[in-house]
Amino acid sequence: MSDTPFKSWPESAARLVAVAAGREPADCVIRGGKLVNVQSREVLDGWQVAIADGRFAYVGPDAGHCIGPDTEVIEADGRYLIPGLCDAHMHIESGMLTPAGFARAVIPHGTTTMFTDPHEIANVLGLDGVRMMHDEAMLQPVNIFTEMPSCAPSAPGLETTGFEISAEDVAEAMTWPGIIGLGEMMNFPGVVNADPKMLAEIAATQVAGKIVGGHYASPDLGTAFHAYAAGGPADDHEGTCEADAIARVRQGMRAMMRLGSAWYDVETQITAVTEKGLDPRNFILCTDDSHSGTLVHDGHMNRVVRHAIACGCDPLVALQMATINTATHFGLERELGSIAPGRRADVILTSDLVTLPIEQVIARGRTVAMDGKITVETPHLDWPDSARGTVHLGKTLSAANFEIIAPEGANRVTAKVIGVVENQAPTRALTAELEVRDGIVDGDAAADVAQIALVERHRGTGGVVNGFVSGFGYTGNMAMASTVAHDSHHMIVVGTSRTDMALAANRLGEVGGGITVFRDGREIALVELPIAGLMSEEPAEIVAAKAQAMVEAMAACGCTLNNAYMQHSLLALVVIPELRISDLGLVDVTAFKITDLFEEP
Amino acid sequence: MSDTPFKSWPESAARLVAVAAGREPADCVIRGGKLVNVQSREVLDGWQVAIADGRFAYVGPDAGHCIGPDTEVIEADGRYLIPGLCDAHMHIESGMLTPAGFARAVIPHGTTTMFTDPHEIANVLGLDGVRMMHDEAMLQPVNIFTEMPSCAPSAPGLETTGFEISAEDVAEAMTWPGIIGLGEMMNFPGVVNADPKMLAEIAATQVAGKIVGGHYASPDLGTAFHAYAAGGPADDHEGTCEADAIARVRQGMRAMMRLGSAWYDVETQITAVTEKGLDPRNFILCTDDSHSGTLVHDGHMNRVVRHAIACGCDPLVALQMATINTATHFGLERELGSIAPGRRADVILTSDLVTLPIEQVIARGRTVAMDGKITVETPHLDWPDSARGTVHLGKTLSAANFEIIAPEGANRVTAKVIGVVENQAPTRALTAELEVRDGIVDGDAAADVAQIALVERHRGTGGVVNGFVSGFGYTGNMAMASTVAHDSHHMIVVGTSRTDMALAANRLGEVGGGITVFRDGREIALVELPIAGLMSEEPAEIVAAKAQAMVEAMAACGCTLNNAYMQHSLLALVVIPELRISDLGLVDVTAFKITDLFEEP
Repeated sequence: MSDTPFKSWPESAARLVAVAAGREPADCVIRGGKLVNVQSREVLDGWQVAIADGRFAYVGPDAGHCIGPDTEVIEADGRYLIPGLCDAHMHIESGMLTPAGFARAVIPHGTTTMFTDPHEIANVLGLDGVRMMHDEAMLQPVNIFTEMPSCAPSAPGLETTGFEISAEDVAEAMTWPGIIGLGEMMNFPGVVNADPKMLAEIAATQVAGKIVGGHYASPDLGTAFHAYAAGGPADDHEGTCEADAIARVRQGMRAMMRLGSAWYDVETQITAVTEKGLDPRNFILCTDDSHSGTLVHDGHMNRVVRHAIACGCDPLVALQMATINTATHFGLERELGSIAPGRRADVILTSDLVTLPIEQVIARGRTVAMDGKITVETPHLDWPDSARGTVHLGKTLSAANFEIIAPEGANRVTAKVIGVVENQAPTRALTAELEVRDGIVDGDAAADVAQIALVERHRGTGGVVNGFVSGFGYTGNMAMASTVAHDSHHMIVVGTSRTDMALAANRLGEVGGGITVFRDGREIALVELPIAGLMSEEPAEIVAAKAQAMVEAMAACGCTLNNAYMQHSLLALVVIPELRISDLGLVDVTAFKITDLFEEP
Repeated sequence: MSDTPFKSWPESAARLVAVAAGREPADCVIRGGKLVNVQSREVLDGWQVAIADGRFAYVGPDAGHCIGPDTEVIEADGRYLIPGLCDAHMHIESGMLTPAGFARAVIPHGTTTMFTDPHEIANVLGLDGVRMMHDEAMLQPVNIFTEMPSCAPSAPGLETTGFEISAEDVAEAMTWPGIIGLGEMMNFPGVVNADPKMLAEIAATQVAGKIVGGHYASPDLGTAFHAYAAGGPADDHEGTCEADAIARVRQGMRAMMRLGSAWYDVETQITAVTEKGLDPRNFILCTDDSHSGTLVHDGHMNRVVRHAIACGCDPLVALQMATINTATHFGLERELGSIAPGRRADVILTSDLVTLPIEQVIARGRTVAMDGKITVETPHLDWPDSARGTVHLGKTLSAANFEIIAPEGANRVTAKVIGVVENQAPTRALTAELEVRDGIVDGDAAADVAQIALVERHRGTGGVVNGFVSGFGYTGNMAMASTVAHDSHHMIVVGTSRTDMALAANRLGEVGGGITVFRDGREIALVELPIAGLMSEEPAEIVAAKAQAMVEAMAACGCTLNNAYMQHSLLALVVIPELRISDLGLVDVTAFKITDLFEEP
């Protein structure tokens, strides 16, 4: 593995100059096209490019003098040349793929640069896990920069992660070659309250001259928001309405507008540019979270740019939001994000600037995809055993481990129930009257109250925290388990049958993590995620197909909820209200404290 | 002296957050104004700012919660708050002032950030001289960043400078706290030809993550220009027409448009934005060279912004070109150039966005000028003796040293004559038929042919190179001498009397450099420039008055040329055609070689 898989501009400068001057032949020339110049915001008809050492050497009206006998000449045939697309903020783990698999999935969509925050693996494997993601990222034929995760645990005191990230870890990571900044600072109350650890992480990033990612997930644009901005985050992708985007830009932050598999925040915010007329330079597009199915069936950044254009954004402005604006934000404007001399030769051929078909993708001067098919290898890291055996249950679980003991002598109880709300991330804190049989509290299928368990899986403590959940609509005897369990990524088991819950949990221990659905004692779907219990090394198509089968299995168990799997995986996300579950107990996220399962009688 | 005269954002973050949140009082609040937000390109009526530790802590609709009993409250009274102005490229020496004197002159004009290239002192004192400028810059109450000069000598082989700058010098300077990048890469033929030394200087800058300044002083926008861009320069201020500006931006360079004392390149280039509609983000305003008189009588960056607006540029766009665009270019967008949390609190109060009166200037949270008067000290460096005694003539010169010996036996000669062209930097290579008396060639006052001498002054070699110059219109017995002699800054003496030439040269040796005019054996004007023979420690008003007296003395000697002093000081600038003089001889700049004074008979 090489940390610098191709020459830097200074290393190539003599050759780039020689090619531009016509003294040496280029490796490749693209001619006969229309060049989209995102620096001047123009289409330059007939402009040609010459490429050498993976970088643009010449960009101008006629590259004829750069062509030698061995120069590859690509005929654009009147198509547009646009810069390779940049995803300004994203989590690779959301695709259940490793960086190699993710790159393989998105390169045909024209994504040549990604700014990735391996927040999920950081919770499971700490700094070592981040380094593994970073190292596999550096192997890829496209540009994958790593943001050092800032918040593991997300909610100190309310959960136990596999590892914790310290300010010292952040400082160390800033010395790695592929680290571009600090991942989203989710602990916004910490920043607002000047929490020394959070400010130390930000300081370590700023001292290294790198970018502090923001995450201000609150509609409050008052004093707290201003205090957060004063703390140092340089961007934010949590805005959901026009006022959010405008507020961020006015504070000197960049507004990242996301279209993920389940995020639809572009249409509601881009009016700040299209209608309010704000300077578009500080608006950036990103995906945040893309599932494998989205990557396989819908696209990646090409989908976001198309969507922005469909929302009324000028195509050239939309392209700037996915190229030069992003590069400028991360201090990489002279390295990538435009078709200009010295930059990495990342370029897409497309015959239409509105529908944006991705017909040929060139990264670092090499054709990496043609007509939607990848044409290069995306090398895998040789993941160590420490990354594979991460589901430590400590024992074989039995149905008894999922029994919820009623208070002494009770015949009925009033239990707190996590209420899933369709298409919303926040849950509701519900209650239910439940029967007690033999001292054990049962769920209530008729009232759609199932059991939920948080199974500790990082340290093998054998810990199981039990509770109730409503909203999935499960019927019959079933259980579903997942080691994708944001953000601490223990194991979440939801079921109507304690026997099936035990079977599902043990099954994930056996395969090293993933998602499984059991019905009547039999497994009816399985997505193996052996890397940290989060990612598969299989291609996106296979992962997407297994995930689709898993969703269908959930439906077969009676679940009619939209995005049901995502709801399942977020039930331990103890930073979003109202009621969640962690390895430490049931969590009242409104009060930020552990709470009892049963109401006081 | 402190290298970091005030706290960094990370050092102040806890306080900034506390102030924004209302837990601690601000040092200063400005209210009742209209805030120009250069990030969003909006005017925000009623927005207020709170300042702490010299940085903006809160920027928003109501800073009332930041006011404590000791908070200074500034009432804007309906005026606009605009960011302090940035000069993106300039030479302090052009004002004949040191950084302290220059800062004192421009702060009342609203300039709070300067990117300065101490190219002149580098030629006289090398890296040590650059360090002295850097160190005095760091003492100032405003932001003066230093660009490491790249080209001393400007024309290797055609002149001998006091010191030379090497790629190793560049690498060393990149470690200094106030160095922001490489000064203008004037040796554009060197870059185009991949000269290893020039590419090494650029590489040292790029490896340090800093900005390479450009200087492509040619109208040729063909292959050579593209090769120059491929070499790495990130900006260029040598454009003079719309096509130049557009070409630079299309190559991914920033187009710096200058309005200096003698540069008028804004009006001719800004149409790229105002008429052609290019994205304005890559257009930047600068001064390059401002004489003291301009600073005293006309202004500095305020003059440039007003001019850009007068040229039809939207005032908010023009302000962006002198604030955020510049900051972004130099990677300082999160440090200065906008009114946003965390940035240095550099802000101007002005009652009109078109005429731009500079009514109050605040830098790093402190009022530094009020109603055109500076209100703070601008500390001087204790300049060492090595910077003061830089005029080494090696001997007392006499009239005989300025005698031009005719070829053996000649009664008349055809001599090459440097022809000054009014209002143009290039000279013309003329010839004149001149009389020989006693074996000595005389000038010809009737034909406006005076003598010119380049007196070596760095090493005390006693060397004098003699030649002829035309165009000043001098009459009677006079001489003018200057140790400001771009770029090697030896001494240029022009005169009609060899006796006066010797007197003038010796006088500058006596005072340690400057400019003097002698008539009939008496000194009639003197500008003392004891620092490196380039700069005065006196205030701009005094230097400007002396310079004005010097110009009047030139006129009294018959000179009617516009900008006559500048023409004088550029006669040794051996990188601009056609004919110049250096310590090595008469230079044919078209052929880039030393040439004989006399035509072949």
